Amino acid sequence: MTTITSTDPRTGATIDTGIEATSDEQVATTAALAAVAFPELRRHSRQWRAGLLRALADGLEERRAELVSTALSETGLTSPRLAGELSRTVFQLRLFATAVLDGGYLEAIIDHAGETPMGPGPDVRRMLVPIGPIAVFGSSNFPFAFSVPGGDTASALAAANPVIVKAHSSHPLTSRAAFEAMRDAAATYGAPHGLLGIVYGQRAGATLVADAHVAAVGFTGSLSTGRILLDIIEARERPIPFYGELSSLNPLIVTAAAVDARAAAIAEGLYTSFTGSAGQLCTKPGIAFLPQNADWLVATLVERATDATAQPLLNERIFRSFGEIRTRLVEEGRARVLVEPRAGADGFTLTPGILEVDAIDVTEATAEEAFGPLIVLARYNSLDEVRSAMQAIPPSLTATVHSQPEEASTIAPLIEQLQEGAGRIVFDGFPTGVRVSWGQQHGGPWPATNTAHSSVGVTALRRFLRPLAWQDAPESVLPIELRDSYTGVPRRVDGILTLATTP
Amino acid sequence: MTTITSTDPRTGATIDTGIEATSDEQVATTAALAAVAFPELRRHSRQWRAGLLRALADGLEERRAELVSTALSETGLTSPRLAGELSRTVFQLRLFATAVLDGGYLEAIIDHAGETPMGPGPDVRRMLVPIGPIAVFGSSNFPFAFSVPGGDTASALAAANPVIVKAHSSHPLTSRAAFEAMRDAAATYGAPHGLLGIVYGQRAGATLVADAHVAAVGFTGSLSTGRILLDIIEARERPIPFYGELSSLNPLIVTAAAVDARAAAIAEGLYTSFTGSAGQLCTKPGIAFLPQNADWLVATLVERATDATAQPLLNERIFRSFGEIRTRLVEEGRARVLVEPRAGADGFTLTPGILEVDAIDVTEATAEEAFGPLIVLARYNSLDEVRSAMQAIPPSLTATVHSQPEEASTIAPLIEQLQEGAGRIVFDGFPTGVRVSWGQQHGGPWPATNTAHSSVGVTALRRFLRPLAWQDAPESVLPIELRDSYTGVPRRVDGILTLATTP
Repeated sequence: MTTITSTDPRTGATIDTGIEATSDEQVATTAALAAVAFPELRRHSRQWRAGLLRALADGLEERRAELVSTALSETGLTSPRLAGELSRTVFQLRLFATAVLDGGYLEAIIDHAGETPMGPGPDVRRMLVPIGPIAVFGSSNFPFAFSVPGGDTASALAAANPVIVKAHSSHPLTSRAAFEAMRDAAATYGAPHGLLGIVYGQRAGATLVADAHVAAVGFTGSLSTGRILLDIIEARERPIPFYGELSSLNPLIVTAAAVDARAAAIAEGLYTSFTGSAGQLCTKPGIAFLPQNADWLVATLVERATDATAQPLLNERIFRSFGEIRTRLVEEGRARVLVEPRAGADGFTLTPGILEVDAIDVTEATAEEAFGPLIVLARYNSLDEVRSAMQAIPPSLTATVHSQPEEASTIAPLIEQLQEGAGRIVFDGFPTGVRVSWGQQHGGPWPATNTAHSSVGVTALRRFLRPLAWQDAPESVLPIELRDSYTGVPRRVDGILTLATTP
Repeated sequence: MTTITSTDPRTGATIDTGIEATSDEQVATTAALAAVAFPELRRHSRQWRAGLLRALADGLEERRAELVSTALSETGLTSPRLAGELSRTVFQLRLFATAVLDGGYLEAIIDHAGETPMGPGPDVRRMLVPIGPIAVFGSSNFPFAFSVPGGDTASALAAANPVIVKAHSSHPLTSRAAFEAMRDAAATYGAPHGLLGIVYGQRAGATLVADAHVAAVGFTGSLSTGRILLDIIEARERPIPFYGELSSLNPLIVTAAAVDARAAAIAEGLYTSFTGSAGQLCTKPGIAFLPQNADWLVATLVERATDATAQPLLNERIFRSFGEIRTRLVEEGRARVLVEPRAGADGFTLTPGILEVDAIDVTEATAEEAFGPLIVLARYNSLDEVRSAMQAIPPSLTATVHSQPEEASTIAPLIEQLQEGAGRIVFDGFPTGVRVSWGQQHGGPWPATNTAHSSVGVTALRRFLRPLAWQDAPESVLPIELRDSYTGVPRRVDGILTLATTP
């Protein structure tokens, strides 16, 4: 048996967790239990499931103090950040409860039998149904919101699928505490035993992805780990969907007019956006295109970074990788060092770094994502230079533009180009701080993600559902939402969208 | 230059088409033209696009006689079948026009800026947008409805994506005639030149899938060809979605009570379903589970098949493969021959075949799909035997049950099991004759298809769209459908679904 250890990134001290790596047999048992829970979960009503999600939210709230303090020592993130993240996580569960009650996510459609130009057509009814146990790989940088109780777990459960989480190696104790809070709340609520499972250790994660009971994988992490999991999936007898949120540079562009109008506000916002949570956010702006009149803005950023104190990175791997990428950006990406990141005295701590490059020199090497508090400032002479440089930057989760209203027609071609390579376009703001809402889109063209779905917001549900149609089915076989007399969800009936009348 | 030939399957006679295989350079040019057309297509309104789809439908109708007669000599399908298929194809284009005008497929969501439990949230607006040029691989068995003017083409265009079709090698002249009808109609309508392209030859198809401009592939065909295309996609620098409709056995189950109640009607329907279009339909029932009291039903099927005259298969490859699979089903699948398929005097013609097996002997070898007029009758003693045998049958597009109303609770577990392995469950009917409608679902768990989307019906649109969000965007940047004052499409605004008020 291998015992899992954890590390306090603020000091580098090892934390003995007492948690053992999950054996292959235990993984198989956990997956089998989830498969047993699946049909039971499916049989419950949406109202029951909304109650379950709320019970899970309450269960997390009850252990708030313990969860935040455990995460504090395992992640080095600040208390306010962790408290805010837990609030977001709880809010997310409750938002999914609302969405489940609303039922619009079912995409219910009823086509009554009738004449068609090709003769009589049968009665066809269709809605989305759950797919089975979901493997969720927690991330390092969001110990709550993208980990055990995070968005993948919440959306998979909301869609009526059991969940098995692979705990991230950076925060096993936080993972266990969150798991236990949810498991206990689920048991009290009366949910089936296999509703939620957890496995620890890299090997257990690989075994889980290969398990025949697993119907899909939700993953937030690096492109390299994502590729390893994809290889396992491709070797499966039956392939399953892999929903990976992988890599994102999040380009940000400031026009000369925007610099003239509000350089100080942009400097403040940009600094906060690339250094918040020590730059370890998937939507951190990794490259900012600044015009030639931005010298004062650049000087302000440099001053802030130079004066900054060191913040802990999440773990030693990220800490080491950060240094290597910074070196590559300078050597291969031809970036000049404006502020050298400095390691702190203890643990995996670091101050922010700023690099600079001429926009015309931007290549794929300049576009490498550095996970941590680093930004590349690409100085440009014209928006044509920006548009040209953007071709070297892979698609991202987000793209951001700061401009002035009078530039609308000037920047239109740039915005059209940015839309092709992003899942969310931000105007005059910053890409970090992803709002959890009905319309949020967190996902973009490859390699930002590998899907056409979102991993944040209500539409994240869609990843763990598939369409099923019933032809000429007797009423008793149909899900309640597809019966003629039911009016509790929005439905498209004979081509006409109708609203729910009994909420 | 290689000249493409075609064959009349009724006689085996070679048809000189005068069409040359598309060179790599021509493929690249065609893809580049599509990429140029894409932004122009995106700029047009939904109203314009609905008009385009209707113009394409009219263009096909105008050349109905030529299209049907060309397909007749290249496919050996009957005139009524081809005429019906063309009607379906034209109807499909018009249905997509209606869906485009409706705008519900955009899944428009508006979250206004406002307070959230985590502080002030930005304005977030999201809808689905097109993804770029789509490569469509026409099928052998539907020269219209799943080929050049078929469902993939119609849904990709409806979603505002240019289309490049790889003509199926079985019907190049039909492909060219349909392409020209649509191309001319599009030109008259004023569509951009690169809206529609066509390539001929196996190599051209592979080159097309590898082309960097291509954003997704729609494919209807064999699992083996599908795998070859998937390998090309995996070797691309950036992976793209592959929407493959690959393989389907379409199990059908008849209960003893249903046999007692309506053996003659079931025999008639089942015979038509497995022999129609010479059994070359993706939803053909390939295996039918019949109880012990079905001897008269079986004898009726045997009599019909024995008396049948030979019908042409689509091409020599299908003809040869059919014979090989029949041999494997007997030798490895342990099936007994009730009616041996007999080759006709000319061309690739064949009479229907019927095999029989005990349900308890059904294995994966018995579950091989035979594309052509062949059915395996699996005789069972109890529904438990059926449920057990179903575990050897891979997921399918459809599953069908014939039962009596009083059996509802007896068959409930069977239906639950069938739902896990199918995209559409048919009650007391037959899976062939897929209705084109809003709620149709044509797709199932792997290997039926490799996606969670449909390739028939209005929701087929979803495959060629991706979500995009705008954060705090000025009104002028937003698509018209996301502007506050617009009410022409259904939208979810601040969590509340609202209907369109100005159609």
